[in-house]
Amino acid sequence: MTSFREKYGEWAMVLGATDGIGKAAAQELAHDGMNVILVGRREEKLVDLANEISAVDAVKTLVICKDLADEDALKCLLERTRALDVGMAVYVACLHKTGRYWEKEYAEYEQMYAVNIRTFSRAFYSFLRLFAKRGKGAFVTVGSLAGYYGLPYCAEYAAQKAYMMNLTESVAVEAEQAGIDVLLLTAGSTVTPTWLKNKPSDHLEVKAAMQPREVIKEGLQQLGKQHSYIAGETNRQRFSANMQKPRDELVKGMGRFFLKRVEAKAAK
Amino acid sequence: MTSFREKYGEWAMVLGATDGIGKAAAQELAHDGMNVILVGRREEKLVDLANEISAVDAVKTLVICKDLADEDALKCLLERTRALDVGMAVYVACLHKTGRYWEKEYAEYEQMYAVNIRTFSRAFYSFLRLFAKRGKGAFVTVGSLAGYYGLPYCAEYAAQKAYMMNLTESVAVEAEQAGIDVLLLTAGSTVTPTWLKNKPSDHLEVKAAMQPREVIKEGLQQLGKQHSYIAGETNRQRFSANMQKPRDELVKGMGRFFLKRVEAKAAK
Repeated sequence: MTSFREKYGEWAMVLGATDGIGKAAAQELAHDGMNVILVGRREEKLVDLANEISAVDAVKTLVICKDLADEDALKCLLERTRALDVGMAVYVACLHKTGRYWEKEYAEYEQMYAVNIRTFSRAFYSFLRLFAKRGKGAFVTVGSLAGYYGLPYCAEYAAQKAYMMNLTESVAVEAEQAGIDVLLLTAGSTVTPTWLKNKPSDHLEVKAAMQPREVIKEGLQQLGKQHSYIAGETNRQRFSANMQKPRDELVKGMGRFFLKRVEAKAAK
Repeated sequence: MTSFREKYGEWAMVLGATDGIGKAAAQELAHDGMNVILVGRREEKLVDLANEISAVDAVKTLVICKDLADEDALKCLLERTRALDVGMAVYVACLHKTGRYWEKEYAEYEQMYAVNIRTFSRAFYSFLRLFAKRGKGAFVTVGSLAGYYGLPYCAEYAAQKAYMMNLTESVAVEAEQAGIDVLLLTAGSTVTPTWLKNKPSDHLEVKAAMQPREVIKEGLQQLGKQHSYIAGETNRQRFSANMQKPRDELVKGMGRFFLKRVEAKAAK
């Protein structure tokens, strides 16, 4: 099988590589032989990850400590990597906030928007243009089932995910014609630091949660084969069942499920 | 039956009232007895509409000529209407662009974003906060089936719609608890000036297209009863059938359908 490096180029950029699914993506791509650019806010954790990767796999690493909420975030990343053969990008970074929609400060949504929509959109567009010129490349967007269903009490997050996911799915169809592989990799419950902080009380939910490395391994196998892929058989079955429901029933159900988690966390 | 005016307040603001579904919404709400605030870019057309409404129904009208892409758009609208009892808002305005995603100038997407996400998001948040304080109110967002399915060759539009729609559906659940009615009214093919410019060649598609007034009448009947409603039996049946399809098949199908329209238009 052709390696990602042979197929796409020498370097892969992981946007939001500090932990969880981003960290797993960096590890997995390094394991496949790609040099990895690790982008995130916490320099110490990124340097640790770079060292860890170098100890296991004979690849180069580049740490770029940058807040993806910054207005100049994408410009900075492109400038720092201009001389490199970047053939792949994985967008994992995503901010979220829970609570009643109109009771949060609007500035919090603007902060989320800066990472989840503004920098995502600029990265997606810039890499697609770049890959179209090169005639090859791969872009992976990490999605959440909330982007398909809505998520009351976490509404802005779900809506911003919906934007990312819908854009990725549509452009994947156009990109295929240009020899570029675009994948929306949608994760269900995944054992990440964020998830552990808001761990659901539901036993079945905890049991169904996947490890980040599993999500990424499964997902990367679909790159170039499918455009939109949900990791985990349990998640795929639930998605299909949920898509049969009337929208009102589906979204209300998500609200009931999530409110329980928010209340359980508040009661702690 | 209680009128909208008794239930929500004296005035309704229609954002994007110049023609199509927005114009129909203003006419229908005036017919129900609400005073209407008509917001759009083209003053002459808005004044004509205001005169037309006043000639038919005994309601007040207020024309606000403002480009919803302007940074200060929402601030301006709130200032101009501060003294009025605004109990309802209908967000219809939506810019779109067709063509291969990465071949358009990014500035065109930013222009779309300003109307479809920035001003929408600020309006939604501001009115929800206001209605929560008053303990009553109604917000209607006009959606498109593309927001559920994606739409290759019109990808940014579909993604921005997905954001609006997902946010509306989630918040509708929270708003119900606060006595506020939020409705996502999703339209399929509708005979608007934009639609006529890109009229599909498919005979069945033309036959299935609805008149704006029909879409609005059907939709407003669901306000306070449902959160998410698709206008037109044909559209509802197609939606249910499409939700059974694997995502890749669904989105590719949308791409084939839409590419035919884009090519037919280019060939004219």
